[in-house]
Amino acid sequence: MFEELSAGTLDRDWDTEPGGAVRMAVVGVGGFARHLALPAIDASDYCTLTTLVTGSPDEKADLAAEYGAEEVVTYEAFRSGEVAEAYDAAYVVTPNRLHLPNAEAAAEQGKAVLCEKPLEATTDRAERLVRACEAAGVTLMTAYRMQTDPLVRRLRAFLRSGGLGDVVKLHADFTFPVLAGSYSPDHWRLDLHLAGGGALYDVGVYPLNTSRFLLDAEPVAVEATTTSSGPFEGVDERVAFQVRFPGDVVGSFSASFTGYADSTLTVLGTEGKLALEDAFVPRRQRRLVVDRESRTTFEGVGGEEVREEFDYFAHCVLAGTAPEPDGRDGLRDVRVMDAVYESAADGERVDL
Amino acid sequence: MFEELSAGTLDRDWDTEPGGAVRMAVVGVGGFARHLALPAIDASDYCTLTTLVTGSPDEKADLAAEYGAEEVVTYEAFRSGEVAEAYDAAYVVTPNRLHLPNAEAAAEQGKAVLCEKPLEATTDRAERLVRACEAAGVTLMTAYRMQTDPLVRRLRAFLRSGGLGDVVKLHADFTFPVLAGSYSPDHWRLDLHLAGGGALYDVGVYPLNTSRFLLDAEPVAVEATTTSSGPFEGVDERVAFQVRFPGDVVGSFSASFTGYADSTLTVLGTEGKLALEDAFVPRRQRRLVVDRESRTTFEGVGGEEVREEFDYFAHCVLAGTAPEPDGRDGLRDVRVMDAVYESAADGERVDL
Repeated sequence: MFEELSAGTLDRDWDTEPGGAVRMAVVGVGGFARHLALPAIDASDYCTLTTLVTGSPDEKADLAAEYGAEEVVTYEAFRSGEVAEAYDAAYVVTPNRLHLPNAEAAAEQGKAVLCEKPLEATTDRAERLVRACEAAGVTLMTAYRMQTDPLVRRLRAFLRSGGLGDVVKLHADFTFPVLAGSYSPDHWRLDLHLAGGGALYDVGVYPLNTSRFLLDAEPVAVEATTTSSGPFEGVDERVAFQVRFPGDVVGSFSASFTGYADSTLTVLGTEGKLALEDAFVPRRQRRLVVDRESRTTFEGVGGEEVREEFDYFAHCVLAGTAPEPDGRDGLRDVRVMDAVYESAADGERVDL
Repeated sequence: MFEELSAGTLDRDWDTEPGGAVRMAVVGVGGFARHLALPAIDASDYCTLTTLVTGSPDEKADLAAEYGAEEVVTYEAFRSGEVAEAYDAAYVVTPNRLHLPNAEAAAEQGKAVLCEKPLEATTDRAERLVRACEAAGVTLMTAYRMQTDPLVRRLRAFLRSGGLGDVVKLHADFTFPVLAGSYSPDHWRLDLHLAGGGALYDVGVYPLNTSRFLLDAEPVAVEATTTSSGPFEGVDERVAFQVRFPGDVVGSFSASFTGYADSTLTVLGTEGKLALEDAFVPRRQRRLVVDRESRTTFEGVGGEEVREEFDYFAHCVLAGTAPEPDGRDGLRDVRVMDAVYESAADGERVDL
């Protein structure tokens, strides 16, 4: 890892054969789709955009033209199968509670699904989503972009190889001041019904899923505190949660919709420590500090994970292999997050 | 703060008048006394060492000569008042459960007391220690060296002045691989009766007390997980604990007796973030990173807090002023830490 990081050759560690192009329908054209997903698909090796699905097709005509989409249709048209011939896979990036009907429709049309995280707004709905894709026999990937970041993948290999000795603990934070940008207080992320949760669901899932990925381990217990005020009433504005993994490893995590933008991950082992700054921010050049006998710092590493995510997904579709961040992976996080909310509400540790 | 840090003029912010010299008895001559306290007293402005109290006076004769102590006596001799004429104040640095008898004896002799943290091995004993000093009308300071570090004091002023906006959350870790040095598994820090607790009592108290100091606020609830194995059975080898403060501020803290040596404190506000590396290690040059609109990094700041601690204590004794880290401050932490253990044992949030 150190050599690759120094040389700037942090390439994919997965097999790219066979080639080809997966025709993508982007279902939901909000900020993330416009600013991150469409440019990533445009830059990808194995994806091509053919279809935009939106509540306002007329308004998105220019965007469709800019990215070369042939079809711009409503959700109803998409779900009815009207554009089934135009796409091979659907990227579902709607508000969380709309993941299920759109993923289900795509699956029933025999299409692969890349679904944003969290998988759905409730465990029950997430489970139905997974089952729909399994029943249809289509590929389902949960859009955990950290899992496709070559840097994060190298960190997992580094930890697996004992790079820090045995892992002892983790600390991580993702603070995303959601109202500091263009979002208003009536944005769906602050709506419990549409989102399923607040800061935990939207950004707390990053420390959780990334830790599960890095450790290759499942939480056995959680305990949590949530707070909320003002425009955030109804969802968690902030959450602090401890996740216990097997082997006496505990993660101390937090996530917030208010506060100075922050995104860090620290892993402490028996023989060293790694600290990642700008850990979870999309397309951000990250800073990695590894302390063992001495300190090694890498500036501006990783960060191309959104494009990698689309290519990895397309690769899985083309090669017929199962993605690592599959539906069960996404469902697991929804279950754990529900346990986090249960713990926060009841003031009790929840065993998983 | 920024100007002082840049100019390297991080001086005391407390009044040093009147001058004088407080004659110190160091009660307990273990590793911390030998390597840190005696050199600090030697370098201090207002303290002078006159007395060593130890279980093995003969073995400590050379050390006494090296530091100019006139008296080297047993605990029994010290407590009987045999050397009462030789000292003005006792620095109690024995195993935790021996704080009470020694502090009590000093107080009864009308002497001021600087007592190591945690104040005692149980809340009840800590309370008796505080009451003994109050009844005798002597100064009692809990030896929270972080509170006397000019850097930490500046950080408190910086936070109070809104340097980060409103504080949102904290993350902190203190991992001290206790068996990596000269301590064997039968060291008193691993003995529940003598220590009162494990990693939480010994090093977890630093994130806790320093946060209380920086925020000028008291915990309202805690939740915790402890783990232990091998030579640590009986005390907590590792603890992860969340401390909720008023105003929706939550601290995510951890402390461990195993793992790579680590000591960090992060404070996140609405308008910025500060991160302190080597935050709690004694006499360590610390690294401070402040992120607001841009990043400012200060290397090698603070770290003279052990000497400062003795001078601040002596100043309080000479001036007749109450130390900030008083007995009640120390007692509060013991109460909070007992709540942390209760939470870990019962799997429930404990309100304070």
